[in-house]
Amino acid sequence: MVSNSPRLSGRAQKMPASPIRKLVPLSDAAKERGIKVYHLNIGQPDIPTPERFWNAIKNYQSRVLAYGHSEGLPSYRKNLAKYYENLGYDVRPENIVITTAGSEAIIFCMMAACAPGDQIIVPEPFYTNYNGFAIMSSVELTPVTCEAENGFHLPPMPEIEKLVTERTRAILYCSPNNPTGTIFEKKELVGLAELARKHNLFLMADEVYREFVYEGHHTSIFEIDGIEERVIILDSISKRYSACGARVGCVVTKNKKLIDSLIRFGQARLCPPTLEQAGANAVLEEGPEYFRTTMNEYRRRRDTVYEILMQIPGVVCMKPSGAFYIMAKLPIDDADKFAAWMLTDFTYQNETTMIAPGSGFYATSGAGTNEIRIAYVLNVEDLKKAMHILKLGIEAYKRRGG
Amino acid sequence: MVSNSPRLSGRAQKMPASPIRKLVPLSDAAKERGIKVYHLNIGQPDIPTPERFWNAIKNYQSRVLAYGHSEGLPSYRKNLAKYYENLGYDVRPENIVITTAGSEAIIFCMMAACAPGDQIIVPEPFYTNYNGFAIMSSVELTPVTCEAENGFHLPPMPEIEKLVTERTRAILYCSPNNPTGTIFEKKELVGLAELARKHNLFLMADEVYREFVYEGHHTSIFEIDGIEERVIILDSISKRYSACGARVGCVVTKNKKLIDSLIRFGQARLCPPTLEQAGANAVLEEGPEYFRTTMNEYRRRRDTVYEILMQIPGVVCMKPSGAFYIMAKLPIDDADKFAAWMLTDFTYQNETTMIAPGSGFYATSGAGTNEIRIAYVLNVEDLKKAMHILKLGIEAYKRRGG
Repeated sequence: MVSNSPRLSGRAQKMPASPIRKLVPLSDAAKERGIKVYHLNIGQPDIPTPERFWNAIKNYQSRVLAYGHSEGLPSYRKNLAKYYENLGYDVRPENIVITTAGSEAIIFCMMAACAPGDQIIVPEPFYTNYNGFAIMSSVELTPVTCEAENGFHLPPMPEIEKLVTERTRAILYCSPNNPTGTIFEKKELVGLAELARKHNLFLMADEVYREFVYEGHHTSIFEIDGIEERVIILDSISKRYSACGARVGCVVTKNKKLIDSLIRFGQARLCPPTLEQAGANAVLEEGPEYFRTTMNEYRRRRDTVYEILMQIPGVVCMKPSGAFYIMAKLPIDDADKFAAWMLTDFTYQNETTMIAPGSGFYATSGAGTNEIRIAYVLNVEDLKKAMHILKLGIEAYKRRGG
Repeated sequence: MVSNSPRLSGRAQKMPASPIRKLVPLSDAAKERGIKVYHLNIGQPDIPTPERFWNAIKNYQSRVLAYGHSEGLPSYRKNLAKYYENLGYDVRPENIVITTAGSEAIIFCMMAACAPGDQIIVPEPFYTNYNGFAIMSSVELTPVTCEAENGFHLPPMPEIEKLVTERTRAILYCSPNNPTGTIFEKKELVGLAELARKHNLFLMADEVYREFVYEGHHTSIFEIDGIEERVIILDSISKRYSACGARVGCVVTKNKKLIDSLIRFGQARLCPPTLEQAGANAVLEEGPEYFRTTMNEYRRRRDTVYEILMQIPGVVCMKPSGAFYIMAKLPIDDADKFAAWMLTDFTYQNETTMIAPGSGFYATSGAGTNEIRIAYVLNVEDLKKAMHILKLGIEAYKRRGG
């Protein structure tokens, strides 16, 4: 007898709902009840997308919105190479493939480096969607747990090396880190580079928060010598220019065979969005003043969030050095339940706060269950209100025995 | 001893260069030599994208280009459901997931239906990038060869049924067809539906050329009864509204579990491009007059191409009923070599014509080697010149013994 419905694949069943987004139905329902929801759950900045972007879109000169080159618009690749050169990295246009957001950059690189069943080592907590990309690519993530108490820095290299197997093909890390805000030090990158060389691995660096540095210094993987053929930068304009809806990212690598395969992956899907590449090209003209202003604003926000967190008894977290997230341990049992409860059961003056539960940022089962990620992407006034509500929420949740 | 460069995965090595795009370096080189190249190789229409699209983009009211919902903008899903309802299909917004172009719609559905190593039956010749999507998804395509002499219609169902194995999970077809222009008849779809029911398969219908019908009638898979849970429409605005660079497509299905998994795949990559969804939403207001005008123009082009092809001795092709492609057998040995030769060695009045070699539209090794695909996406005057050059090119190539 045949079923009325074909079964879905294992990967479709295993594919996780985004921990950043899975509570959206609850927040929609809260809004329908007239409740204002402060969104600290998603890295969607409120900073205006630069005027240059909008002007480029509005002045786009073509009657037909046509396919672009699979590897990206030539003028954009050229100007993007200059952006990296200005940062001091030796990058030519032919080292760049433009992708449909950072997401596609990661998926393409996972597929190019790994056969189904191969492994990638990733420090955790990590950007939650690495989990989903790995399932889509049939790749296994091998987590290296970083501890809040250690500022979410890497454990000693021998502990990472122990995880290398015959099926390990790459190390993937993000610095400045989402979700912790930690910036890995140069010596940590040198350690990873050494491992990559020793075990013949790719070294993939998600550097989308490169400009978001409040303390210390960001070292790019392109600054580490002697591993040119292994190094991959994964990048995106979403955060840098507050253009998340644009879906423009890229891969940068000096490995010609890899570039060639990425272009072939890219040819299958034809091209990244044309119009937004014109916008992305235009915002490259933003000078240091743009980043200075933006970073000053984010620094104020970080300080606001951190200060209020420190006032909540039982909260453990480190002041982050970069990006725009804080990972905090709360004095509660289960952050998934708490985050949902904030949307279904708690309000203060008819408002509530939405945060991302921590477990989704780990590959290790059971890790991060009492942690949350806060994205400080609202203005300081709203952040103060949102954090105050969170504080009251934690207190109320504890009183009811959560 | 360790290599200086990590090896690429099997899928990266197997990933085909697009047969539509792999000759681009040769055409770029020809252009650099001052030669005008008529592009009949790619389905990039010259029809202007509707003014409504551009106006929606220009009037987009937001200072921040933000993430949209992972399943697509709610207003767009709602209006798109109405578009399908107007066609007579029972579609609600919750049956639709918006994707980053038709490409992502196909990749997501392949991943949702198949584990690595599972199989999908596909009539060939087919849209060439199905090959690439299958490799990206680690899926095997099982081709069913359709013959030019039979108007590229399906062979008898028992021949297709013979190809079903324990690992077959779906049948994927495109009608009106790219690259043949064939419109499958209702009885053919009923036959496929019967197979899908009998063997518990998904039935995926790529209907992006739905409106491009010059003769006969297009039947949607949504018109076939009793297989609701198996049916998937794959769709895109690229061709319908001449907006290829927009990267907006969708999946339509009544299978709730499938929709749920597609949304989870979608959450990993966050969202499709926001701005273009606003444009896509606006063009839905185009009425029948838009399609009537556009289709009349394409019909003239089809007739022009077909007429000139028929004047070339030894060419075999059928007059296509829909889409905007023609698949033709040429009196030459190797269309890959011929297509390259047209760009490197042949000009007429300092102009040449670029066509897509046929082999890339087949999964069967050695099939289609003397066939080409012509996309009739230029205006009639340019098409006449391009086809005249092609005619002269074929004659010259034959004279030199090709």
